[in-house]
Amino acid sequence: MRWSSALIPTLKEVPAEAEIASHKLMIKAGLIRKVASGLYNFLPLGFKIYYKIENIIREEMDKAGALEILMPIMTPAELWHETGRWNLYGKELMRLKDRADREFALGPTHEEVVTDLARTEIKSYRDMPKNFYQIRNKFRDEIRPRFGVMRSREFVMKDAYSFDRNEPCAEESYKKMFEAYIKIFSRCGLNFRAVEADSGNIGGSFSHEFMALAASGEDTLINCPACGYAADREKAEGASPFCGNEKEVLKPLEKVSTPGQHTVEQVTGFLNKKASELVKTLLYMADGKPVAALVKGDDELHEIKLHRFLGVTELVMMTAQQVEEFSKAPVGFAGPVGLTGMKIFADNAVSKLRNFVTGANEKDMHYANANFDRDFKINKFLDLRVPKEGDLCVKCGSALVSLKGIVVGHTYKLGTKYSKSMKAEFLDEDGKRKLMVMGCYGIGLARVIAAAIEQGNDASGIIWPMAISPYQVIITALNYKDEKIKLFADSIYEEFKAKGVEVIIDDRDMSAGFKFKDAELIGIPVRITVGNKTVNEGLFEIKLRKTGEEFAVKREELFSKVKEIVQRELVK
Amino acid sequence: MRWSSALIPTLKEVPAEAEIASHKLMIKAGLIRKVASGLYNFLPLGFKIYYKIENIIREEMDKAGALEILMPIMTPAELWHETGRWNLYGKELMRLKDRADREFALGPTHEEVVTDLARTEIKSYRDMPKNFYQIRNKFRDEIRPRFGVMRSREFVMKDAYSFDRNEPCAEESYKKMFEAYIKIFSRCGLNFRAVEADSGNIGGSFSHEFMALAASGEDTLINCPACGYAADREKAEGASPFCGNEKEVLKPLEKVSTPGQHTVEQVTGFLNKKASELVKTLLYMADGKPVAALVKGDDELHEIKLHRFLGVTELVMMTAQQVEEFSKAPVGFAGPVGLTGMKIFADNAVSKLRNFVTGANEKDMHYANANFDRDFKINKFLDLRVPKEGDLCVKCGSALVSLKGIVVGHTYKLGTKYSKSMKAEFLDEDGKRKLMVMGCYGIGLARVIAAAIEQGNDASGIIWPMAISPYQVIITALNYKDEKIKLFADSIYEEFKAKGVEVIIDDRDMSAGFKFKDAELIGIPVRITVGNKTVNEGLFEIKLRKTGEEFAVKREELFSKVKEIVQRELVK
Repeated sequence: MRWSSALIPTLKEVPAEAEIASHKLMIKAGLIRKVASGLYNFLPLGFKIYYKIENIIREEMDKAGALEILMPIMTPAELWHETGRWNLYGKELMRLKDRADREFALGPTHEEVVTDLARTEIKSYRDMPKNFYQIRNKFRDEIRPRFGVMRSREFVMKDAYSFDRNEPCAEESYKKMFEAYIKIFSRCGLNFRAVEADSGNIGGSFSHEFMALAASGEDTLINCPACGYAADREKAEGASPFCGNEKEVLKPLEKVSTPGQHTVEQVTGFLNKKASELVKTLLYMADGKPVAALVKGDDELHEIKLHRFLGVTELVMMTAQQVEEFSKAPVGFAGPVGLTGMKIFADNAVSKLRNFVTGANEKDMHYANANFDRDFKINKFLDLRVPKEGDLCVKCGSALVSLKGIVVGHTYKLGTKYSKSMKAEFLDEDGKRKLMVMGCYGIGLARVIAAAIEQGNDASGIIWPMAISPYQVIITALNYKDEKIKLFADSIYEEFKAKGVEVIIDDRDMSAGFKFKDAELIGIPVRITVGNKTVNEGLFEIKLRKTGEEFAVKREELFSKVKEIVQRELVK
Repeated sequence: MRWSSALIPTLKEVPAEAEIASHKLMIKAGLIRKVASGLYNFLPLGFKIYYKIENIIREEMDKAGALEILMPIMTPAELWHETGRWNLYGKELMRLKDRADREFALGPTHEEVVTDLARTEIKSYRDMPKNFYQIRNKFRDEIRPRFGVMRSREFVMKDAYSFDRNEPCAEESYKKMFEAYIKIFSRCGLNFRAVEADSGNIGGSFSHEFMALAASGEDTLINCPACGYAADREKAEGASPFCGNEKEVLKPLEKVSTPGQHTVEQVTGFLNKKASELVKTLLYMADGKPVAALVKGDDELHEIKLHRFLGVTELVMMTAQQVEEFSKAPVGFAGPVGLTGMKIFADNAVSKLRNFVTGANEKDMHYANANFDRDFKINKFLDLRVPKEGDLCVKCGSALVSLKGIVVGHTYKLGTKYSKSMKAEFLDEDGKRKLMVMGCYGIGLARVIAAAIEQGNDASGIIWPMAISPYQVIITALNYKDEKIKLFADSIYEEFKAKGVEVIIDDRDMSAGFKFKDAELIGIPVRITVGNKTVNEGLFEIKLRKTGEEFAVKREELFSKVKEIVQRELVK
């Protein structure tokens, strides 16, 4: 490609709304432009990156035996009613009516359509395993589209759906996809972790998130550097290194005045205690019924864990008014002692505490030396805390670290959730009709781009991994109007093109500085400079974007040197 | 691919609604399945064909210098308001609202979005020519979706849009696309014509349709086998070979009784005249005003030509009531003599007629020996007839033929229609701001598939052109359970795969007849049979789908023979 024929509208300024590096750089380097909130054009350079990722995904999916199909984006409401998701999905599901007033959804995911396909076309156990995938636009009416293509309302997704005759086969299919994902993200050059994850509203029995590590990531993952255990915040377990004071003799319960002291910090400061010597009481309404959750003062309640444990539809924190009604005290003074009319659940760490401070259900009053069993009853101890950096790995006991990540892929073991509601059955070897066992597997293509930029950038711009860089090599021709320079530059451009190197030549009538800046901004891994040094000494200067390394190469060694650099960086 | 791992659900019966060969065969061969009216799943085999066409298109578009991009399917109403098409498009435009009640259209075409992109990113004459394309889903709420994927409501389209600094450059861009289209459809193996076409509601100054010839085609084209002139019915010109009777002496106008004779056939039969001796009078309302059009009795009025000539928004035939009101007679007796209150336009052929029969604007009465100028005034003679097979080519004078076709591509020279309404300007070399000159170019990918099937099928099934066949070769292994046969079949399967031949092996436990039928149905060009003859004599039987030719080949010659057949049929 000649830069003069391309459209690479690099910018100096970016809109204020661009908060994170990838969003800023995708606009600055001319990869994307906003059409409306959460809707973007991929310009030619952006599309090239997108398309490289699409092809890596396609290759690995095909190798894993998945079959590519194409399902419509417009999906009939009838299918969504079968699974109940027409109502469950809420406003995120984009809906429309056709000229005959029939209702459709723009697919945010395609379980319904593909299960309908499977129940019609898969008849016998002999027809399985099957794994169907497509790479197409998806639609989700995000309440707050942000971070550019990271959280947009229309985005291209690779979604795959496996169908198996039983659980062990379904796990085999899941494993194949898991391995394909490892290959895909490795080939894309991402630094990522496969983490155990919650199944969310897709449902199913277990799932993994593939998280590209990035400080700007919206998601937190807990990782054990020793054994590799990784899980997202919703799913992570971590043993608290807290030893407790279980051996202490129980002291008499004592009501103490804590005038105007609401927060853990205020109360423990006032009483000269540590946060770990206090038990927080959090009051919730679970499907309209009150419930209390206790965690140690320096721990954080993990709402999702509580929600999942209770198995309710809705879990919301009590309003100030509800707190007063149920605890007979203003917010900040609730405690388990004398708390009636609700069940009390406590985090495991609380079981190691004796003689702790807790609210007295009375304005400006707390208890000191409170103890469970003696002073109040706990219905159940369970894991209710948000794991923290420094917690101990439940698998190997090493200290965990907390990392930020961007979810680029998600695999779900769905089980029979959808095949049951949609009656996707097959005839098994034993002559019985059984439900197909499903899995589903998604990759957000634009997120891979954004994540790669979050991981690869500096003050000058993007630093692409070789495999997804729009071009492998940029030839920066200084003073292209000079006939001799032009001749050298064109000759290597034509040679590289002919030999299959992905190359762009900057043939614009611009200053050297301007061209260098643009080359660094758009992040091409290998830059070859053709200038006077080339004309006078026959030397081509190579600069590597990632390391900044610079060296000069003779004409006859140029191709093989460049080829070597390119090959070295392509993960196979 | 192993058939046992694929999903190719061939059928014996097809739904009654499938009227044409391509629709029937796409269902029968397991390429597509209906999801809802006008919405289809492309199953794995169908997708493979689709994807091959996508790649041919991409290659030729890239070669022609077009730049691939990705625009959102959800397009904001504001852009459509700028060109006025939000209101003009009517019910065919699928519309929806987001959670904030903002309006969007699902793009049926993307002039608005791409022009918005161009006006922002193209600043100077130096930035042109530019041609942006994408290959994505489009949406049109067809009033009557039919013929399977031929006229569906969601379909993948390659749409390209060129931007140029002036008319000559725009014509150059148009020509490049025209040539790319010739290459694309040739490579896809279609028998097609590039025909001059009407610009329809996309607008612009001129356009071509690329029509795949097929008896089942919805469109008619007029073609000159001598000079190659081709145009669609809307645009075609054809000189009537009619000589007329211009030399005849004018006879006196005579009112004749034609009781109950309404139609041309009835009237000329009753009066013992030829249809070419009568002039039909057709009455229309043009934007609410009456107008009359005259054509020779054996010609057909071309409504679109009249419509275009009048330059009105709406042209509709008068209702029976309106005919009575304006002609003072029931339908069937209108004529130009004494017809007042409206302009009268006549087809050129009428100018060669003297002493003709025509309606008398009175129930059961006609005139004989009517003559224009003497008996009534004609406002203008112009080309108003539908050209016919046997008409003379306006370019070379040879006889024209009429053919049926399927529109697979359309190129439009748009001029400044969109750049004007959307103010897409650039700074020209002379320092002045000017409007970009545009072209747009579409290909319906599924239509290419359907057209290829319409052109290539027989009683047994599909006959694919090599370039878009899902597989080039099918290995039909008879009795695959026989270890020796399996060994031979697997060995050539693995060899062909490794050497880049696109091959499927039918490894199912089915009868020879069943497998042969399926192979013919799905239309794979080269079939290799592995059976006892292979085991006993070392011979592989090859059968060519297109010609039915059969011959046996030895193991050592097999690959080179197959390679030769494949290469021969791939149009470069």
